[in-house]
Amino acid sequence: MILYSVPGSCAFASHVALEMAGAHYEVRLASREEGRTAEPFFEINPKGRVPALVTPDGVLTETPAILCYIAQTYPQAKLAPTSNPWLFAQVQSFSAYLCATVHVAHAHGHRGYRWADKDASFQDMTKKVPQTMGACFGLIEKEMLQGPWVLGETFSICDIYLLAIARWLEADKVDTTTLINVLDHRARMLRLPEVQKVLAEEQKLVQSG
Amino acid sequence: MILYSVPGSCAFASHVALEMAGAHYEVRLASREEGRTAEPFFEINPKGRVPALVTPDGVLTETPAILCYIAQTYPQAKLAPTSNPWLFAQVQSFSAYLCATVHVAHAHGHRGYRWADKDASFQDMTKKVPQTMGACFGLIEKEMLQGPWVLGETFSICDIYLLAIARWLEADKVDTTTLINVLDHRARMLRLPEVQKVLAEEQKLVQSG
Repeated sequence: MILYSVPGSCAFASHVALEMAGAHYEVRLASREEGRTAEPFFEINPKGRVPALVTPDGVLTETPAILCYIAQTYPQAKLAPTSNPWLFAQVQSFSAYLCATVHVAHAHGHRGYRWADKDASFQDMTKKVPQTMGACFGLIEKEMLQGPWVLGETFSICDIYLLAIARWLEADKVDTTTLINVLDHRARMLRLPEVQKVLAEEQKLVQSG
Repeated sequence: MILYSVPGSCAFASHVALEMAGAHYEVRLASREEGRTAEPFFEINPKGRVPALVTPDGVLTETPAILCYIAQTYPQAKLAPTSNPWLFAQVQSFSAYLCATVHVAHAHGHRGYRWADKDASFQDMTKKVPQTMGACFGLIEKEMLQGPWVLGETFSICDIYLLAIARWLEADKVDTTTLINVLDHRARMLRLPEVQKVLAEEQKLVQSG
């Protein structure tokens, strides 16, 4: 399989999941111009977004889908409780919150052009990011992260996805003083050998790109 | 089960899925003030968003998760190919696109306060909605909706979710002249007896609220 990625993006989650699943894969840098994806990447993913995973069945996009696909395709890695409807629903609920609310809040910091046209609007959006991301992570801290992992005792793709987005907290200028469990979770995740390996591979990609 | 909904919202998708699954359920109007959800609904869902489904296992939130939960819990209704990792990944990819990109584009029309603070920013965002929603539905028309259903010959929760969001096209002032397949899909969906029943129930909810 081939994963198209941009270092520092949410594609990091798919990269870590592939590594933890023991998959055979290759990571390629998506084509970019001026900080945005560009041709020929649009031929891989017409949406123009990373991650995109080239599988034997076709190209798969969207982080929640890629993470579940990896979990279902490599069941021995036990990355998601896919056969238990309630627990699996929890996984999908958490993924949906991260992609549709948290990642979207973050994206208003530098991608305001997706939803508005004026510089003043972009500045207004950027200014609100510490507050919106702080509110999201406040909910994660208080309501979602059961501990030690997101689902409680069971490690899952939720933990991988959370790490990918929690990496942005400082750049998004979020006040992290009350995010005790989120920061502890991130520190534990960053120590995992698979995560260390992916971080090193991201560095190589940055140098190659 | 109890579904908390707001008529006209994306909770419509969960409502239709419950009806098609043959589930025993009740629909309740989420508490609102000035067009936003309000206490005591926050006690049901701390995120303050519909839909929220009260199940025997707990409260489930986020449309992609609720739709998959219903499909997995009522397998005889055949609402999702959950045991085929590739097809199921397609379902989740489509759901993720709708919740994280299409619904988010729509929300900038009336919910700009989520991401900015100034009236001028809200106006700038609202003005761009026909363009962003048009681009999303252009991709759905061209790249995603295989026909006759989203996944091709197999009806699924993707079709239900697409209907919920395609209901917004006119209010979002999208130029629909090239959305031939999307409009045909919507018209076929609207004729289904389960959809007709849910539309009637939404009317009752509006009158009761």
